[in-house]
Amino acid sequence: MRAVDIILKKRGNSLNTSGAELSKEELEFLVGGYVRGEIPDYQIAAWLMSVYFNGMSFAETGNLTEIMLHSGETIDLSSLKNPNPFVDKHSTGGVGDKISLPLAPIVAACGVSVPMMSGRALGHTGGTLDKLESIDGYKVGLSQTEFCNIIKQCGYAMTGQTKQIVPADRLLYALRDVTGTVESIPLITASILSKKVAEGSDCLVLDVKYGNGAFMKTPELAEDLAVCMVNTLKSMGKKSAALLTCMDTPLGRKIGNFLEIEETVECLQGADVPDVMELTYSLGAHMCVFGNKARTLEEGREKCIKAVNNGSALDLFYKNVELQGGNVSKLEKEIGKRRSPHKRELVAEKDGYIYIEAYKTGVAGCSLGVGRNRTDEDVCPDAGMILRKISGDKVCKGDVIMEVYGKDEKCFDFAMPILNSAVTYSDTPDSRLHNPLVLKTITG
Amino acid sequence: MRAVDIILKKRGNSLNTSGAELSKEELEFLVGGYVRGEIPDYQIAAWLMSVYFNGMSFAETGNLTEIMLHSGETIDLSSLKNPNPFVDKHSTGGVGDKISLPLAPIVAACGVSVPMMSGRALGHTGGTLDKLESIDGYKVGLSQTEFCNIIKQCGYAMTGQTKQIVPADRLLYALRDVTGTVESIPLITASILSKKVAEGSDCLVLDVKYGNGAFMKTPELAEDLAVCMVNTLKSMGKKSAALLTCMDTPLGRKIGNFLEIEETVECLQGADVPDVMELTYSLGAHMCVFGNKARTLEEGREKCIKAVNNGSALDLFYKNVELQGGNVSKLEKEIGKRRSPHKRELVAEKDGYIYIEAYKTGVAGCSLGVGRNRTDEDVCPDAGMILRKISGDKVCKGDVIMEVYGKDEKCFDFAMPILNSAVTYSDTPDSRLHNPLVLKTITG
Repeated sequence: MRAVDIILKKRGNSLNTSGAELSKEELEFLVGGYVRGEIPDYQIAAWLMSVYFNGMSFAETGNLTEIMLHSGETIDLSSLKNPNPFVDKHSTGGVGDKISLPLAPIVAACGVSVPMMSGRALGHTGGTLDKLESIDGYKVGLSQTEFCNIIKQCGYAMTGQTKQIVPADRLLYALRDVTGTVESIPLITASILSKKVAEGSDCLVLDVKYGNGAFMKTPELAEDLAVCMVNTLKSMGKKSAALLTCMDTPLGRKIGNFLEIEETVECLQGADVPDVMELTYSLGAHMCVFGNKARTLEEGREKCIKAVNNGSALDLFYKNVELQGGNVSKLEKEIGKRRSPHKRELVAEKDGYIYIEAYKTGVAGCSLGVGRNRTDEDVCPDAGMILRKISGDKVCKGDVIMEVYGKDEKCFDFAMPILNSAVTYSDTPDSRLHNPLVLKTITG
Repeated sequence: MRAVDIILKKRGNSLNTSGAELSKEELEFLVGGYVRGEIPDYQIAAWLMSVYFNGMSFAETGNLTEIMLHSGETIDLSSLKNPNPFVDKHSTGGVGDKISLPLAPIVAACGVSVPMMSGRALGHTGGTLDKLESIDGYKVGLSQTEFCNIIKQCGYAMTGQTKQIVPADRLLYALRDVTGTVESIPLITASILSKKVAEGSDCLVLDVKYGNGAFMKTPELAEDLAVCMVNTLKSMGKKSAALLTCMDTPLGRKIGNFLEIEETVECLQGADVPDVMELTYSLGAHMCVFGNKARTLEEGREKCIKAVNNGSALDLFYKNVELQGGNVSKLEKEIGKRRSPHKRELVAEKDGYIYIEAYKTGVAGCSLGVGRNRTDEDVCPDAGMILRKISGDKVCKGDVIMEVYGKDEKCFDFAMPILNSAVTYSDTPDSRLHNPLVLKTITG
């Protein structure tokens, strides 16, 4: 087998421009060889660009995912002897997207076992691990034994990807980043799924976001990714459902690291944050069905609502915080009070119905300290925004639209003008308010 | 400027799948940077694959050619103070394609100055330099001063590419070879033209071959390459003409290194080898017009024929051999006599009209020692084939079709079965005989 022949097969020729499907052996030779240092990066770069142009079949994407996930350690949850499937959720990322935080304890309270491996903030989107780490003492780098023990005790655990998990993805992602091959649906799919399957889940619920604050800007692109993920998982023998959800405007009323922990606690206490809870219940209903805890989506949704109403989800949340090393009593005292001392207010420039654009809000948030532009930067746990008004609200000139908290005084110079431009005013409510939060569900 | 942004521009995106034209500055940053060791090969590999899929405009190909040719030394012919353009010829390579050998002295005899830089045999095609080196003492590695002096004295000189000429091409070709990006018309064009323009020619006549013995298998692919070469040269301010010529069956009656020198001498002595002379005169007519030695193609052709008939072309050929260090008297004595001691005859298996397929003949020739499979192999000067019968001839079972000369006795085991399969028999002349030798001429 020669790497160049495999590249040529995927590249195709003048008679067969769309290339051919590579076998698992060919992908293993190429990608396995790359991870072992046997295949040089320039051949992988050429193959990646061929994949960008010619795509991959679902089975091929599944085989690539398998090869990637077996490039390193995988998590073995068999010691938990769970009679039902392990179910996890993945989101393609958004602004104010704290859904994993209330979702995990809610479905755990319904009896579903949730091994959750999350990521960090990058660019304009936040990261679940950074949010959790704003809780004093909370540890996200769990050993495999700790991960299993915590799931056993509270139904779910939250951890980060270690260096031992899917090293192929780190290598390939770094190469894609510098070779212009990031935006390939099957490569994105294999990158996401290799990590999710390595963590031991049997079923997955996918929140695939579309809109200006999402990775996929249009519903069509988001659907392409969702269809690819669901069918790739199917080819690997895993069940999944993908929800196409709107990310044109931030989710919820609080954006930040600690601020999103705070909003999570408030939601689990029963606060009325409609978009956050609607999305949480929609995803949770699927997770309950996958986890054999509900026969129908309706039943799953009812169980989730009940887990909030009877306080069992909040109890599990605090239990998880405690099990992962977090200081629960300190957290309880901080709710509603812990804020950065560096504060501004964004006030309405004129009267009208407002719309807050997610992408610009995320970019401003990043510069406030919510996120990071480079993976080696630190985030500020107390930075963020509290939305006093949300998209669709009517404001009068001078009304406070949001409280803005920064990592220092200097950051506002950059953040405030962007936040200002993120808000648009109109005489009638913005037509984007008609975009359904859950546009479509794709199942395998 | 960042390499990844240039790759992305050429790659295009979901809105603009065909990518955009890169500026000369962007190409210089990428390719110049690669030659200087500033841009890593994996980024060049990704760009090359994007070019494979999205192509390049003629102007873009011209800019790439300029950047490549200025990556090393270029030949300065100004010391020759030639009032007329320097004209060279390029062929994409074939079997029995010795056209450069009679063509250069013929057009030089017409007064055209020909700085000719040629290549070596590789795979099934022969190389002009290997043929010339079969002449005892003939030197193809000329210094720039020698090259100019020889052109001054006999109107043409034949040399090889030095390591100092177009280093970018060697680097890029080596990378294309292992990344599946060889078959790209603009990349092929830039590779050929960078060397041809670096050698100092003002005008170029291109012999772009199509057919089973050619690099481009179909007339359509050959035309694509011809159109790209002519228009790229036009964008660089150079005149050219490309002839699409048939390479389904070998050219002439002798194939080999010394055997093709011998056929050249015979042709220049007036021997009747119709296909070789037709192609030589067709190309020569264009060269005479480009070199301001004829007003029309008809006049150019007449001058070429006269140069053969009056012996002036043969005189220049011998003069060139002498000037390049070759032993003329030894050469004259060897004509018709110098043969490898390892000989076989290919005899007709049955009665019928024969057709000899070029590609298989070339592959067999390579194993006889005419060519090489790796650039570091030696060729055998005395190996080759003398065709006693050519495509279209009627044979009787047992007739000798060709004399076959090998580098040793062992090589016939591989070569003879292939040669046997290269000959087909039919009751009526093969329809491929109707393919015109010169199918089309493309001018800029």
